[in-house]
Amino acid sequence: MADINHRVGIKSSPEAIYEALTTDAGLATWWTNDVSGAGDVGSIIEFRFNGGGPDFVVKELIPNKTVGWQHSGSVPDSWVGTEISFQIDTGQEQTFVRFTHSGWKEPSDFMAHCSTKWAVFLISLKDSLELGVGKPFPNDVQIDHS
Amino acid sequence: MADINHRVGIKSSPEAIYEALTTDAGLATWWTNDVSGAGDVGSIIEFRFNGGGPDFVVKELIPNKTVGWQHSGSVPDSWVGTEISFQIDTGQEQTFVRFTHSGWKEPSDFMAHCSTKWAVFLISLKDSLELGVGKPFPNDVQIDHS
Repeated sequence: MADINHRVGIKSSPEAIYEALTTDAGLATWWTNDVSGAGDVGSIIEFRFNGGGPDFVVKELIPNKTVGWQHSGSVPDSWVGTEISFQIDTGQEQTFVRFTHSGWKEPSDFMAHCSTKWAVFLISLKDSLELGVGKPFPNDVQIDHS
Repeated sequence: MADINHRVGIKSSPEAIYEALTTDAGLATWWTNDVSGAGDVGSIIEFRFNGGGPDFVVKELIPNKTVGWQHSGSVPDSWVGTEISFQIDTGQEQTFVRFTHSGWKEPSDFMAHCSTKWAVFLISLKDSLELGVGKPFPNDVQIDHS
């Protein structure tokens, strides 16, 4: 098994970060502009990128602290069985977001690609909350030419 | 053990990428502007950030294909024993760089921080080669407020 780990520090409140991770409108500010279904535990969030994209079922919510998703469905294939968690922790001058995308069967090239791309989107989350403008798909920072 | 994995695709030649990974001048275009010591296998590269920073001994060089470093010295503490590799692979319209920073004792918050920060520097490498301007330290993209 292999995991992706990231951590960013954001000058924003845990409440604002939690909102950006748990609502369609919030998620659309930093990951992709096409999000639907975000809600309570058990809800299925559909993230779309030019029509296709992954679904996640919300597995855990601790307000302003923890958000846990489990991949749902079959796309992309290598995400099947993986889980994503966001842990929100208050620091002295910032709020930290610890991100984990765990349960990859192997550290494939695609997993490495996703690792780099998750960094891009977490910086987009930071920019969205600090500057008022993130870079969600289709305005995301490109890391290759595919 | 835990590893950091990344992958970027760059519109540049394997030769130019290899140069950026194996010379002081090349490394200074994307990681930190204060680099010395890059050379053949066995040389020790000193990367400095405001005076402090890690040393790496060059362990493997396959021209235009593979660059391997092993952490040397005691700073930062949690990097001791870790290794870094860059694998260069030619794609159809781009050259891929597969990055691994392996051998972390645990997926600590600092490891997660470094994972995000490596993505920033690999995108800096991409920008340096494609646009002629990277964002090495001290002009690097900030991922927190430390």
